[in-house]
Amino acid sequence: MAIHLLAEKPEKIGRIVSALQTAAEQIKRCSICGNLTEEEHCSICTNPNRDRSKICIVENISDLIALEKSAAWDGLYHVLNGKLSPLKGIGPEHLNILSLTERLADESLREILFALPNDIEGEATCHYIQEQLVENSSISVSRIGFGLPSGGEIPYADPTTLRNALESRKGF
Amino acid sequence: MAIHLLAEKPEKIGRIVSALQTAAEQIKRCSICGNLTEEEHCSICTNPNRDRSKICIVENISDLIALEKSAAWDGLYHVLNGKLSPLKGIGPEHLNILSLTERLADESLREILFALPNDIEGEATCHYIQEQLVENSSISVSRIGFGLPSGGEIPYADPTTLRNALESRKGF
Repeated sequence: MAIHLLAEKPEKIGRIVSALQTAAEQIKRCSICGNLTEEEHCSICTNPNRDRSKICIVENISDLIALEKSAAWDGLYHVLNGKLSPLKGIGPEHLNILSLTERLADESLREILFALPNDIEGEATCHYIQEQLVENSSISVSRIGFGLPSGGEIPYADPTTLRNALESRKGF
Repeated sequence: MAIHLLAEKPEKIGRIVSALQTAAEQIKRCSICGNLTEEEHCSICTNPNRDRSKICIVENISDLIALEKSAAWDGLYHVLNGKLSPLKGIGPEHLNILSLTERLADESLREILFALPNDIEGEATCHYIQEQLVENSSISVSRIGFGLPSGGEIPYADPTTLRNALESRKGF
């Protein structure tokens, strides 16, 4: 992209620079969920049509954006900005977990959905956060389903995906 | 592959021709499940270690091979050799369904798992076969789970896959 701009569109660089500067100055993190916003709270946290009894926990803002595009979730989010990884020295203190702990104590909360990756670090992060919930046992806790992707064909799926698909089989 | 053989390895063509001829003469379909075999019944149908109370219904032999590689299924299979498609003129009479109907009447059958594609034709095929089962209501019928594939990252998943992943969320 940098080479294209320099070689083909040098006149556009000024506009990009100013747009980036404006973004850097005006866009910050929502103090509730960690989403990007220009205000104190983001457009999802302040939307009265969202179901405030459900929180979907994601690793990054790009996960939140993808889930919003799918229109499959009408609750709130919480962006961790990473996942626990002892090998990389990432502990709970490096993630956006402190504000989550406060949200988990909210009595109107009914459901937590983990949309974290299907790897060891994602699993460890789910379990760590779930332990914070012990006090509030009325909350339903679940994790997104893993299996064959839409349009995915069985012969091209890896063995782990097929095992997940068989384990998560559903009656109909 | 043909060009490579002709240009680089003409001396190997004879061996390939004879291997293909032998395969065409000796390999046939298992009369129970439709898998490839050199005998009357395939190595899965005759294996005493397989759980004979469970049948996994697949579209093609390549699906069966992929599921065997994943080592996630210890039951038997049934290969349909296609899926119902009225638009393409493929009806039940074109599929390996007659021998399936006989198998479904077996009283020792406890579970049917559909490992058919996540599309309209796959769904129609599931429902058509399920209707054949009405008489035998003690059988558990399920379909493989659809969701995020192993190692799949949320930002790169399509909206349908994300909706499936959220719908098939599991408590833990």
